[in-house]
Parts: sequence; C-alpha cells; structure tokens
Amino acid sequence: MLKVAIVGATGYTGLELLRILANHPEVEVVSVTSREKAGQKIKDVFPFEARFADLVFEKPDVENIAPRVDLVFLCVPHGAAAITAKAFLEAGVKVIDLSADFRLKDSQVYENWYKTTHPCPEIIEQAVYGLPEVYREEIKKSSLVANPGCYPTASLLPLIPLLKEGLIEPQSIIIDAKSGVSGAGRSAKLRLIFCEVNEDFCAYNVAMHRHTPEIEQELNLAAGSSFSINFTTHLVPMSRGILATSYASVKEGVTEKDLRGALSGAYSKEPFVKVLEEGQYPQTAHVKGTNLCVIGLKLDSRTRRAIIISAIDNLVKGASGQAVQNMNIMAGFSETIALETRPLFP
Amino acid sequence: MLKVAIVGATGYTGLELLRILANHPEVEVVSVTSREKAGQKIKDVFPFEARFADLVFEKPDVENIAPRVDLVFLCVPHGAAAITAKAFLEAGVKVIDLSADFRLKDSQVYENWYKTTHPCPEIIEQAVYGLPEVYREEIKKSSLVANPGCYPTASLLPLIPLLKEGLIEPQSIIIDAKSGVSGAGRSAKLRLIFCEVNEDFCAYNVAMHRHTPEIEQELNLAAGSSFSINFTTHLVPMSRGILATSYASVKEGVTEKDLRGALSGAYSKEPFVKVLEEGQYPQTAHVKGTNLCVIGLKLDSRTRRAIIISAIDNLVKGASGQAVQNMNIMAGFSETIALETRPLFP
Amino acid sequence: MLKVAIVGATGYTGLELLRILANHPEVEVVSVTSREKAGQKIKDVFPFEARFADLVFEKPDVENIAPRVDLVFLCVPHGAAAITAKAFLEAGVKVIDLSADFRLKDSQVYENWYKTTHPCPEIIEQAVYGLPEVYREEIKKSSLVANPGCYPTASLLPLIPLLKEGLIEPQSIIIDAKSGVSGAGRSAKLRLIFCEVNEDFCAYNVAMHRHTPEIEQELNLAAGSSFSINFTTHLVPMSRGILATSYASVKEGVTEKDLRGALSGAYSKEPFVKVLEEGQYPQTAHVKGTNLCVIGLKLDSRTRRAIIISAIDNLVKGASGQAVQNMNIMAGFSETIALETRPLFP
Amino acid sequence: MLKVAIVGATGYTGLELLRILANHPEVEVVSVTSREKAGQKIKDVFPFEARFADLVFEKPDVENIAPRVDLVFLCVPHGAAAITAKAFLEAGVKVIDLSADFRLKDSQVYENWYKTTHPCPEIIEQAVYGLPEVYREEIKKSSLVANPGCYPTASLLPLIPLLKEGLIEPQSIIIDAKSGVSGAGRSAKLRLIFCEVNEDFCAYNVAMHRHTPEIEQELNLAAGSSFSINFTTHLVPMSRGILATSYASVKEGVTEKDLRGALSGAYSKEPFVKVLEEGQYPQTAHVKGTNLCVIGLKLDSRTRRAIIISAIDNLVKGASGQAVQNMNIMAGFSETIALETRPLFP
Repeated sequence: MLKVAIVGATGYTGLELLRILANHPEVEVVSVTSREKAGQKIKDVFPFEARFADLVFEKPDVENIAPRVDLVFLCVPHGAAAITAKAFLEAGVKVIDLSADFRLKDSQVYENWYKTTHPCPEIIEQAVYGLPEVYREEIKKSSLVANPGCYPTASLLPLIPLLKEGLIEPQSIIIDAKSGVSGAGRSAKLRLIFCEVNEDFCAYNVAMHRHTPEIEQELNLAAGSSFSINFTTHLVPMSRGILATSYASVKEGVTEKDLRGALSGAYSKEPFVKVLEEGQYPQTAHVKGTNLCVIGLKLDSRTRRAIIISAIDNLVKGASGQAVQNMNIMAGFSETIALETRPLFP
Repeated sequence: MLKVAIVGATGYTGLELLRILANHPEVEVVSVTSREKAGQKIKDVFPFEARFADLVFEKPDVENIAPRVDLVFLCVPHGAAAITAKAFLEAGVKVIDLSADFRLKDSQVYENWYKTTHPCPEIIEQAVYGLPEVYREEIKKSSLVANPGCYPTASLLPLIPLLKEGLIEPQSIIIDAKSGVSGAGRSAKLRLIFCEVNEDFCAYNVAMHRHTPEIEQELNLAAGSSFSINFTTHLVPMSRGILATSYASVKEGVTEKDLRGALSGAYSKEPFVKVLEEGQYPQTAHVKGTNLCVIGLKLDSRTRRAIIISAIDNLVKGASGQAVQNMNIMAGFSETIALETRPLFP
Repeated sequence: MLKVAIVGATGYTGLELLRILANHPEVEVVSVTSREKAGQKIKDVFPFEARFADLVFEKPDVENIAPRVDLVFLCVPHGAAAITAKAFLEAGVKVIDLSADFRLKDSQVYENWYKTTHPCPEIIEQAVYGLPEVYREEIKKSSLVANPGCYPTASLLPLIPLLKEGLIEPQSIIIDAKSGVSGAGRSAKLRLIFCEVNEDFCAYNVAMHRHTPEIEQELNLAAGSSFSINFTTHLVPMSRGILATSYASVKEGVTEKDLRGALSGAYSKEPFVKVLEEGQYPQTAHVKGTNLCVIGLKLDSRTRRAIIISAIDNLVKGASGQAVQNMNIMAGFSETIALETRPLFP
Repeated sequence: MLKVAIVGATGYTGLELLRILANHPEVEVVSVTSREKAGQKIKDVFPFEARFADLVFEKPDVENIAPRVDLVFLCVPHGAAAITAKAFLEAGVKVIDLSADFRLKDSQVYENWYKTTHPCPEIIEQAVYGLPEVYREEIKKSSLVANPGCYPTASLLPLIPLLKEGLIEPQSIIIDAKSGVSGAGRSAKLRLIFCEVNEDFCAYNVAMHRHTPEIEQELNLAAGSSFSINFTTHLVPMSRGILATSYASVKEGVTEKDLRGALSGAYSKEPFVKVLEEGQYPQTAHVKGTNLCVIGLKLDSRTRRAIIISAIDNLVKGASGQAVQNMNIMAGFSETIALETRPLFP
C-alpha cells in the first residue's frame, strides 16, 4: 500500500483527491492537513465524506507527517507549496504539487507573472511537468511532479501534437477558454457568491491570466521555437468543466484529415484522451467527474484556420485526477486505477 | 398612438416585445397572432402577462390585421417571414422583421447558408439593416427593417468602428461568441431540456452558424473590402445574454488608446452603447433586460492583437429591444422610449 | 419631489431600491450611504448602475443627511437600524426600515429570537407594520414603517383573510417556504459561494428562523387568538423568488370556494395581489422583478386540509418594492408608481 | 456473471443503470433496448458512454432477449411495463420494474390514480415492493420487484420507523417534497426546456401526484391502520436530488431523542441510510450520485410537531441505484457492490 498525505485538504482539489482515492485499492490516505480545521474530523467539516470520514485534520507539520508517508499531494497556494515541497523532498517523500510553483522552468518568468520571488528556485530543475501524455517516462522517474494547471491541460493536449507535426502556425494561436466556477477555488469571496455568478457570463484576467506562460512554455517546447499566444479566460455559471476553443492557421496544404490524424496518432492508445470524429464536438457535461480530455476539431476552409475544441473536468483531468494519474505512474501502478471515464450525466 | 401587431407572439421575442411595449406610452398593441393558440387570451397561455392579459391571439391573417395597424413585428421563422412581410408591405403596413429574411443583401448567400430559396428576393433591396447606430438615417425612411441577429449585433457594434478607422486587419478577425439558451427559441426540443443544458458548456454549429454571412456582410461594408472571418458559437447554461470575445491583429503603430478612441468617438452620443474604461470588461448580468451593448477591450502588446469583448441581452438589444428602437426611429418617437438601461440585478 | 436617502445601499435591497426608484417620477434620491465605499461613485462599485451612476456614497451620518431628505430607507442590519431610525425620526425624517427592528411589537419576543437587547424599545409602538394590504390606513399616517420580512409577506398575504373569516384552524398551520439565494444578502460567506449552493437544495434554520415570531404575531392578530405555527425555510439554487406552501385544516363545512372567495374578497381591488383560479398555481418566475404576490390554493378533500401556495420576488414585494409601495402611500402618491406587475421572463 | 437487459435504456434511469453497472464486477449487460434507436450503437446516441459504448440498441423483443438474460430492468412507462414484465416472467427471467405498475397492491387504487386499467392484475401479488430496508427478505426470494418511486423512497424511509414505533400521529402527516428536474424524465416537453425551468420554483400536480397512494399504502402498512396524508411536490431548478420535508404531530411524551432513536435503531446497520445528529440536516448536494438516503429531524417543542427532512438522489436511491441494490439482493451478491456513498461534490 502506498501511503499518502494531502496537504491542504479542505479546498476543492483536496476534496476531489479524497473522492478519487476512496476508490483506489493500492493507496492509503494517512494524513490530511488543514491549518484552520486541525483537530477536527473530516466528517465534522464535510458531513458527506464517506471512506475517510473519521480521519482527523492535522497541521501541515512536515516533520510529523513525512515519516508516515511515501508521497504527498500539495493543494496549497503557490509560494507555500514550494517551501513545503522542498521539506518533503528532503525527508525522502515524493511530491505531486498541484500549485504553480514548479510548472515554469524559468524562475524569472514565474516572478514576472506571479509577482513574487520563487522561494526555492534551486529545485525547479528537479521537477517534471506532470502531463502524462507528454512526459510519462520522466514522471516515472521523478520525485517532484508539477501537476499542470487546469487551463493548460485543456489547451495543451490538442495543440501539442499539431505543433509537433508542424501543421499549424505557432504565432497564430489563440485560445479562448471557459471554466466552471470551482476553478476559482473554495473561498469566501464576494465575487464568487451565487447571485454574482449565476445568470452571468464574463471574461476575467484578460491578457494577464497566470496560466499563459505555462501554456506558452509547453507549446514552445513542442514547436521547437519561441512565440507568444493569446489566451483569454471566461467564467461559466456552472460548477465543473473547462472548454477551450483554440484557433490556429494551418500551414499550406494541410487538411482536416491531417489534423485529426495527428491527434489520433498521438492519442489512440491514451486511456484519457478521446479524439472525436468529424462533425462531433465535446461538451463539458460529457466529462463531468471523469479524467478525460475530449477533443473535436474543424478546419474552416474559408479562412484556413483550424478550430480546435477540447473539454475536461477542471477538478479531475485539470487537477486531482491528473494528480492521481501521475501518482499511479510514479508508483508503478496501472495508470487508470480509480479514474473514471464515464461522466455523472445528467 | 401607433398601432402595431406582433405576428408570432408566443415565442421569447414576441413575449419580450409585449414586455417592452407595455411601458410604451405611444404604442397600442392591437393584434397578437399565433396559429396554435388562436382564440385564446394571452393570459390563458401566459398567466404572468399583465397589461395585455386579455388580448386574444388571432390567426396570422394579413387581410384581417393590416387595416388595423400601422406597423407589424414579425417573430416567425425565416421563409414564412418574407412572405408575410411582403403582404403587409403591399397593404401599406410598415414591417420590422426579426427573422433573417431581409438581412442578407445577396439572395444567393441567403440560399447557401439557409439551404432554401428566398421567397421574395425582389423586395430585399427595399430592406434596411436595422442597426440604428450605423443605419439610423436609412431606418427613418424605411418601410421594411431587417432587425439584426443577436450575435451580429453583439459582434458588429465593437468591430465596425475599428474597421472604418482602419485600425485592425480585416482578415485576422476571429469572433468567439457565447449565448444564453433563450437564443435557441421557445420550442420543445430534447437538446434544450433543462438536464441536457444545465451544468454544460459546449460549442455548436461550428464553422457553419447562419449568422456568419450577416456579420461578414456588414464588416465588409465597414472595411470597404471583401474578407471572411471565423465565428464560433457556444451555449451557456443561463437564460439570457451574449458575450462575444473578438480577436484582431492591429495595424502597425496602433495603440489601445486609438482603439478605445475609435469606439468612444463612434458611440459617445449613443444611448445604448457603452464603452468601458481601461481594465474594465462587460458581464452579461450587467445588461440583463436592458437594450445596452457594453464594450471593453485590451491590446495585448505581446501578440499585437486586440481582444474586444462585448455583451448584450440577446432578447433585448439582440432582438426585441432593438426592434422597438427601430420602431421608435421609424415612427419619429424619441429613440429611447420604453427601453431600459439598468439591468435586473441580481 | 420627495427627497429620499438609502442608508446601506450596497446590498441587494439597496440596489433594488435604486432600480425601482429610477423609474419614479416623483422621487429624487439625494443620498446613498456605505461605510465601506464612502467617497466612491456608485458606478465605480456597480458599473451597471444607470440613472444614479454618478451619485457618491456617503458615510451614514444622520446629522449631515437628515436636513436634505424627507424620507429614508434603512437597509442596514437589525440593531444598527433601530438606532439610525431613531435619529432620523428625531430630525423629522420619515423612516422605512427594511430590517426586523420594528416589526415585533413585543421587545421581549425580539430579544428571544434575535438574541440581543432592543436598542430603543420606546419607539416600537410608533411603528406600523408595512403590509399595505392590511395596514394601509395606518401607513398613511405613520412616520416609521417596519417593512415586513420577505417570508412573512409571502406567508401572511394568503393566510390572513382565511383566519379573519374563520375558515381554517389556527393551530394547524404549517408553512413550508423556499427562497432564492438573494434572500441571504450580499456578503462574502463560504456557504453562499456558487459551488456550495448550485445543484443543491436544503432546509436551514430549522424550527428557529427569525421570521417565525413576525408571522405568528400577524396571524394571531388576524385570528384574534394566540397560537404557534410551524415555519420551515429552504434554499433554492436561483437568485430571486420565494414560494410558500402552507397547510391548514379547514373548519367543518368549509369548501374550496369559500377559501378562494375569502381571498378574492380581500384582494380583488389590490393592485399587487393576484388570486389564481382553480387548478392554477404560482411560479416564482412569474413574479420575477415584480411587486406581485400570486396565490393559488386547493382544498384536499381526502385530508380536509387546504394547500395554499404563494409566490413573491423576495427583493421586490418581499423587500424594496413593498418599501416603495409604502413610500407611495406615506407620500400620498398613487400606490403603484414605479412598481412593475409584468416579470422579466425568461 | 449475472446477465441482464435494460429495457428502455435511453431515458435517465436507463442511462443511470449503465453508469452504475459499469462498475459491477459480477454483472454483464447483454442487451439494451430502444424502439427509436434500435440498430444504433450506444455511443452514437450517447457519445459519453464508456464501457458499454459499442453495445447496440435492440427492439424490446422479449422472445429474442429472454433466452440471453437472467434478469431484466424495465425502464418503460407504466402499462407497457406490466405487459413486458409478464412476458419476461413467463420466460423465466427475473424482473425489476422501475415503473409504477406493481407498486400498488390494489389494482383499483392503481386505476383511480393512473386513469387506466391495469393490464395484468393477476400477477400484482407476486410483486415485492423493492424497498430493501423494509422488505429485504421478501426481495431475496422474489422474481418480480416493484422498484419504489423516487418520492416514496425519500418519504417512506424516515416515516416508517416512526410509525412502527407509534411515535407520531398517522393522520397528521404532511410531506412537502422537492425534486430536481431529472425526475420528470428525458423527453422533449416545452415545460421542461431550460428557460422555462431555470430561475423558477413551483409546485406541480398539487393534491394529485401519483406517488401519493404508493406512500399511503406503505405508511398504512407500517402503522397498521388506514389513513390519508398530504403530499405536495415541487420542481427545483437543478438536475438531481429530492428533499422531502415531512411534518407529523408526535404522541404525548415523545421526545426528539425517541424519534432519533427509532431511526437509528432501524438503520444503524443499513449501508445506505444515514441518520444525522441533532442540529444537522441533509442537503441534496451531499447525496448526488450516491445511493444514500440521509435523514435529519427536529421536534419543535412549541407545536409538538416533528420536522423530518430526508434527501436522496432521485436517479440513484430514487431509481437505478435502488434497482441495483435490489438486484444485488436477488442475486445473492453483496448488497453494496457498485453503489457509491460519496457524492460528486461540488
């Protein structure tokens, strides 16, 4: 049995890890932490919790937790995550960090976008970007996985194969992304209360969303060149789900079949990426609660632009599901254990 | 008192006309039609109707209705609308057609996108495209106004001034639009039932939405050149509202101030277009029930693309409110009568 | 022109007063207050505000505001409201208090349910309970109106006539009420964020909701006897609306016609109460944005219990609309000015 | 491996059976039927389906299906269900009928409420009412299980133990129930489209809901006496979940502890019924996707009435989950296989 801890278990990604790991036969959750709820049982805070109802929240004390666990999931804000990660790594515990701290390889880029100094830039290079469909081999050997952001996961999976095969113009890429509200986290903000979100649709963080450099880093690596993209985020009045609509000019002679072929080629054996047939497009309701990324595309012959649409559940493939997928890889388990592919519909 | 009829008054645009006209001191609604509900009072079908509760639905019989009215709103499907419009015009009644039948000046384009022969192409040239901010003078003199589509209204208002001033590259335009569900009409389709829409976000009619040629026609006219655009539509799990996020490369030397200046210049005296200041972006909840189009924009200096965001209520500025605005212009009334600028919030 | 102030104008009831008063030709809003936003323009906080966009929030300084106004709406928490009310009254300004401070005639009952000492019990007897359909004459002459709670308004309007006519057994009354989320106010609480409310339905404050004694006081007065009721509240994942389903055993020989007759008799001339015909029942969507209370009922012959269903918009007839109705009465205006009876539907 | 068929697999209960059975290691789904979709693969109709994606819809031909299966789930309308059930039973196949056809033991009561003659009253007595917590032993031996309605499941589980122990007055029972929209089924009705349901709350089928006699039958059996109840249903703008708020006068001397004790006594060993502690009440979001019924209660000392609140997922414990629980019992499997107790939250 792999023994794991969840640091920061009262947010939506922590809760989602508990939900997924409850169905994992090879994993034992031995510690959940919360500064605010320390000393309380999970069921006192979340009466709906089942398998882990009687687990008691602890303070996030690395010295105390490290000796009892093999691997830790960090569900705490950036900055705090890096410091905690370093301490666990030094204590010999593997780390899957759901924050942004180890996603960017260049600490200067991190500082530009996150407006803070990286607390331990010296270990950034140890980190592997935890997108299994791209970095599976590296993840196997890693002790520190930077779990990708939700928007980057939805955006990168369809675009990377198209760039790798040289089918689209890198500098033409525009990603128009839409997310359910759980992506904003579980915190008491006026902007997030029901009456402010319900029956509304809006863009936010226009041209300055922090997932931009993460997407650019991985797209640049895939293309082997340096370029910027447009990335715009919107808030959808629903709890879960991200849909990314990406636009890119195709290179001369490229057909829709070429585009779909590149995706099918990259993902035909992937358990969690599904490429739809011509004329089919994804819906977020069709991935709710699953670890899937579903992709549809169309080449608009009038403008010679590809329209690439991808959907994920931001809390699963966009966060905790992908984290468990990474854990499965790191621990040598079958990669699909505990991860659903059938949504709760409706 | 201007006497008006609403042909097809049981759909959401017909109902919205009733809601708006209830507050219009210069208009008398003398006829509402419905094939299916003919003979019933409005209140028997819509128990919430107030001022017009006792009006009785009639069959859409032009001979019977025309002598009693000065102007008619057509809220019936394309095809049927054109035939009805022609009959009313011949009887000397002014027509505001909320269908697509007279929006496209080229009947061949109409037939390509609507997959049907235009029933009366000979009167297309009489029609004025009912976007008051662009065609106010023509509307004043017209007897046949083609009320714009909801998506075109949201898309055209921000883009036309930028094209007219030559600030953006026409062929670079991408419009990523999102609409609430009332845009799909009031009909019993499985795809529209609550459990199929709720907690879902998806694209639809990808690269083939019928509003595309309407947008292109007006953008081409504004730019004085011929080009195609990308236009993608999405369904948001909310009742009302459209948000369009448009992307366009700016010409060399153009600044964000230039872009905002072009919009402010075009709309500073317009009662129903509001250009937001730097760093502000529209939300659909802020236009709910109003006849406003609210516009925000950002020039992304990294990619030299403008991100232009506009919001309307699809049933008001995107349909019935704009129709009443057109009626006010045609009848010589003050343009803002009966049209709200403060939303029902929350 | 009646000059008014809104004390506490950043919550949903304050905003709703602004929305309604924007259409009032006889009223000038001369002051809006907010401790937190003092010094800012309304439009800086609420970019969607229209007519009052440039009004500047002030501190709630009675000495400064009182000389400039004829009447003040208090939209502040209980306790604070009473103290402010007293100061305005002493300065000769009429007060409509939307808090609970002057609704209960017995300060001991107030203290039992609100767990605090009443700050100025000596002026409670000056207050009139602002349910115009019951206390219109008293409201006309009053300087201090206690605007009823949202649940009490929805509950009392159907039950009072039935009790006055002796048709139902007082001690059998059970009120099962359901409210949209705006009833919980506009504040940053974790329990109110979108993901915690959406796709959920629950009861809250079971057997201890503070509107209970207010309902009981008025029902007891109507019946002329002393009794307790059951009152249970539930949270509906929608922004606006209250539906109350009330149950009461009917007295021997009473028919459904008798029940409906009592309601029709009481309300046939009331502009804002609508009694539905047999087999029709209210929906909250049909009162959204209106000042209406719509009532339907059924006598279940199997159990001899009446099922009485009433719907209001909690922010309008349940708060700010009723406050304006009271203001119209107090000022001698036509009672219906600025108050809608047609909902924004959908 | 138990071989099963799902007759009527394109509705929400059929789909939910597929979702649940996908995780059942002892069951093989060998046939799914649909008159309308016969010949198509499941994935062509439901692109999100995973494990059963390639199964082909068949016509509901009993002769063809019966030889291949051990047990059949009927997800077809009442009337049709009874006829199909009879044919499968005669072919030696066990039947779990999710329709109402075999729930009522008295065919005359059935005919009164369903307004149709029962097609095969002669086999009603073979049927066992499939509420495992009450009829587990009978279900074990049965070949025909009448799966309870969603509202009855939510209503009966809390009330039966209280009646059996004689703690409440039978004739005082009032059940005020609220359901998400999936309870209305998956069909194209105008009343169910998004814009008609969203932002609305209403009662429906007042005093004439067909689940009334089913609830009364089982409550009468529990109490050992004959009485009627009030049962009112409401529609909540959410996809899944039922919350029932029940009221009953308690007998003299009965305490809240007695009530909670009766429920705890009845259900302490039940895997799918959870009795909450004092001051805790259920929320539908806490049972979403689970087979749980969660119960909270309060004795209001002022009125001596118990307020009993219960929540289920109408598609799981209220339909398909309970059907699988019954199947597990009938087949001798562990009762909890494939049935979740942790919700998808948020």
